[in-house]
Amino acid sequence: PAPREVWKKGGRLLSVLLAVNVLLLACTLISGGAFNKVAVYDTDVFALLTTMLLLAMLWILFYLLGTARCPDGVPYRDAHAGPIWLRGGLVLFGICTLVMDVFKTGYYSSFFECQSAIKILYPLTQAVFVIVQTYFLWVSAKDCVHTHLDLTRCGLMFTLTTNLAIWMAAVVDESLHQAHAHSSHSNTSHTRLALDLERASSAVGGECSCDTAVCQIFQQGYFYLYPFNIEYSLFASTMLYVMWKNVGRLLASSTHGHSHAPSPLSLFRETFFAGPVLGLMLFVVGLAVFIIYEVQVSGERGRTQQALVIYYSFNIVCLGLMTLVSLSGSVIYRFDRRAMDQHKNPTRTLDVALLMGAALGQYAISYYSIVAVVAGTPRDLLAALNLAHALLMIAQHTFQNVFIIESLHRGPPGAEPHDTPPKEPCHGLTFANLDALHTLPACPPTPRLVGPSPAGPQEAASVIVAPRSHWRRRCLKDISLFLLLCNIIVSSRAGTEVGSGEEKAKERCSFYGPDKVWKHPWLWFHPYPSPVSWPLLPPGAGNQ
Amino acid sequence: PAPREVWKKGGRLLSVLLAVNVLLLACTLISGGAFNKVAVYDTDVFALLTTMLLLAMLWILFYLLGTARCPDGVPYRDAHAGPIWLRGGLVLFGICTLVMDVFKTGYYSSFFECQSAIKILYPLTQAVFVIVQTYFLWVSAKDCVHTHLDLTRCGLMFTLTTNLAIWMAAVVDESLHQAHAHSSHSNTSHTRLALDLERASSAVGGECSCDTAVCQIFQQGYFYLYPFNIEYSLFASTMLYVMWKNVGRLLASSTHGHSHAPSPLSLFRETFFAGPVLGLMLFVVGLAVFIIYEVQVSGERGRTQQALVIYYSFNIVCLGLMTLVSLSGSVIYRFDRRAMDQHKNPTRTLDVALLMGAALGQYAISYYSIVAVVAGTPRDLLAALNLAHALLMIAQHTFQNVFIIESLHRGPPGAEPHDTPPKEPCHGLTFANLDALHTLPACPPTPRLVGPSPAGPQEAASVIVAPRSHWRRRCLKDISLFLLLCNIIVSSRAGTEVGSGEEKAKERCSFYGPDKVWKHPWLWFHPYPSPVSWPLLPPGAGNQ
Repeated sequence: PAPREVWKKGGRLLSVLLAVNVLLLACTLISGGAFNKVAVYDTDVFALLTTMLLLAMLWILFYLLGTARCPDGVPYRDAHAGPIWLRGGLVLFGICTLVMDVFKTGYYSSFFECQSAIKILYPLTQAVFVIVQTYFLWVSAKDCVHTHLDLTRCGLMFTLTTNLAIWMAAVVDESLHQAHAHSSHSNTSHTRLALDLERASSAVGGECSCDTAVCQIFQQGYFYLYPFNIEYSLFASTMLYVMWKNVGRLLASSTHGHSHAPSPLSLFRETFFAGPVLGLMLFVVGLAVFIIYEVQVSGERGRTQQALVIYYSFNIVCLGLMTLVSLSGSVIYRFDRRAMDQHKNPTRTLDVALLMGAALGQYAISYYSIVAVVAGTPRDLLAALNLAHALLMIAQHTFQNVFIIESLHRGPPGAEPHDTPPKEPCHGLTFANLDALHTLPACPPTPRLVGPSPAGPQEAASVIVAPRSHWRRRCLKDISLFLLLCNIIVSSRAGTEVGSGEEKAKERCSFYGPDKVWKHPWLWFHPYPSPVSWPLLPPGAGNQ
Repeated sequence: PAPREVWKKGGRLLSVLLAVNVLLLACTLISGGAFNKVAVYDTDVFALLTTMLLLAMLWILFYLLGTARCPDGVPYRDAHAGPIWLRGGLVLFGICTLVMDVFKTGYYSSFFECQSAIKILYPLTQAVFVIVQTYFLWVSAKDCVHTHLDLTRCGLMFTLTTNLAIWMAAVVDESLHQAHAHSSHSNTSHTRLALDLERASSAVGGECSCDTAVCQIFQQGYFYLYPFNIEYSLFASTMLYVMWKNVGRLLASSTHGHSHAPSPLSLFRETFFAGPVLGLMLFVVGLAVFIIYEVQVSGERGRTQQALVIYYSFNIVCLGLMTLVSLSGSVIYRFDRRAMDQHKNPTRTLDVALLMGAALGQYAISYYSIVAVVAGTPRDLLAALNLAHALLMIAQHTFQNVFIIESLHRGPPGAEPHDTPPKEPCHGLTFANLDALHTLPACPPTPRLVGPSPAGPQEAASVIVAPRSHWRRRCLKDISLFLLLCNIIVSSRAGTEVGSGEEKAKERCSFYGPDKVWKHPWLWFHPYPSPVSWPLLPPGAGNQ
């Protein structure tokens, strides 16, 4: 229906250039505003973010009105984009962000007279933006837009950039707050840093102090709710990115609105129960170990050592099991005769990229730990445990990612070929892989869609038959659920490391020197490797 | 001939995982070895690099023997990969690297008795590696390998990683040396840094000193030759990456060995001479301004100010002209009726990625400069010039990249359709775009190659007719040559900024504080934005 696009990459190039420029400007201001010595104030940052929010909202409203008026603009819908768990998560985190905005408004209203108005305006604008954007993504996440291509691409990229800028601002603000809280109740000599942060937090409060109980609750509350805001921005960004990739995409109409999302109830059906049970056991034990650790680490020196040994040992066992289970999952796939799904799928490509990117940070930490332990002088039990932990961390991430990526590339369960090969290869196929069809020379040329790019339109028009619950599928589901539960306990450890893993932090400090720790930005941004956890969901939620 | 690969991405995944792990290990050791406080010594780094070099060489020899024994393993050759100027550059930089290795060996041999043997072994191994790798890339850069797919991928990625590790080590070593040289002859108060580097450089020399004249020449020489080594590693990396992307790729055999590389003599033919002449004029003036600047900046305060004003003014004029010329190039392309080349081409994709990546660093610097100027208090002439310079830098990079990327995506000159449309669209095409063929419903299905991925094999089997030198092509060639010449003068400025742009550095220091400057790694790695300059060559060298 829509005219063919002459040069897809050219349209993308423009929007990427816009996004890069806006993002760099935001990045400059946010990083400048975070440091007190610099003549950039946080009001400048708030003003920029508010402007971006308003512009992005304008574009979203324009888009919603435009598609409502001419429904021909969206001829195809990508079934893989915006699955229900992603949209559900978006709504959930959106609600938490709204609560955070209320708290933030309340906090800044407590000393309205000595703050600039932009600090109250910003959370209010953000609240409106969250409502508008969540509605927008709920209704249009699957759209393959075919009108105003360049404008849509630029609008989507700008909205994406806005989300990333909010994410950056939230991470920087939270990191400063966490580091401040950490340095104020620990007795280590992070004097320079503590001083910096003391000043930074006093700048946030201005000349007025937050003394009343309500104000204190507001302040505490909004810092606790920051992680939800961060997750919201990441969820929205991924959905916007997939929408951007889908602009101008041509799909076979057989996939129109045909999404076979597994119901949440089927999650625990068709398993051997071994995976979830073992996973839950480890989860409970892990929680207990974590509590013991938290209690003992604040005690005297000898008990801290003991707590660390228990803690590391548990993690080593956990990581070892996860490695073995991931490996066995990959081995099971070796016996799987389902065809690999080679088709383009922006959602999956993004998942793989995020998985690998998130693993990169973990790899880097592990390698630095290994070098630190091997080069360090005190070769005691704790050093050995630390080394084993780092090595297993690398192995676990590698094998788990291989397993997840492999399961993401499997065809739907119905694509498993029957024991007897089909008699007529051209007609009555259980799996209609258009590429495979072309390898059969006797086949008449199938009618196929022609797209501007050779890779675009060739989607598998797979016919879904009722899935048989083979033992392999059951095993894989067990494995997925086990890994899912274990990942929660392992990443909760990673999330609290800044707060509680003082020993490790101290060790790193003494190895690289305290200044060098602050030079590694991944130590700052480490508490948020959240994208790891959610791409785990698709194979876990039904192993489709 | 070769069996089809079941899952291409799986094979790639394994090799990428290998590369990431090796690279992170190397990165950890190199960054650890660069700091003196850390218990990682540079001998450890040398040992790791030597091992990597030996392993990579082993694989290269295995590959060369393997393809020599079974020539069926390489059924296709990618005409776009490894163009002659890239291979020629590789040989040139390879020779310079060999000279550097000789100097390095001579330098370390001067105090053989108090150095560990690995420091002499490393340059010798590197010299052998450079010879082997240059031969390997010269003969096999265009190969699309179809045997031992996984092994070849891993081998290529490992060799790529080795090159990147050498690059990292060279950049770190050179940066330390440059910063040391800079801090020792400047009177600014980089005391802490200077102390660090003093110790670092004394560690390089060990307890023995380099007093003899020969030793001094060797030391000076090898530091001057470092940039060539860095370029060599980058060239080899890009060629290896393209080879890696081409593993298992299926190509139409019509493109077999069919590379229409323009001869260097045709570079200045078919132009209006306006571009090269204007470019050369700017080049000469730029050189003069640069020399004046270098002479005056070491004088007293007033003359430094004057030199900076001249310097910035010239750069602003130069950047403004480049922006306008790039823009007019894009406008000319609007009137060009040649079909866009939408086919997959790993070389071009890498070019675009490198262009955008290199621009990112320049963008970041410009945005930080803008914020620094806007937020800074002394609003004088120099601040205004600095602001204009930063803004123009962004504009120039944006428009130039758009122009280059657009010209990279144009079809060959013969693909320009004639004034009269061809009578028989299916036979006797001047441009046989396989995708376009499919849009014609009356066409019988053309025999086409079937590849494992839907995007792989569809290469344009374009028939090259004798190119008519249209005024548009002449104009574009003029523009390309002008931009090429201007880029040399603009990036030579960027390359010497660390050495001579003290004013700017000081300004940044006072804005972000001296500590923060050292936290931005792009300020360290800034002197090497070299990939910018060479992707400019393809459109300039004939605008094919």
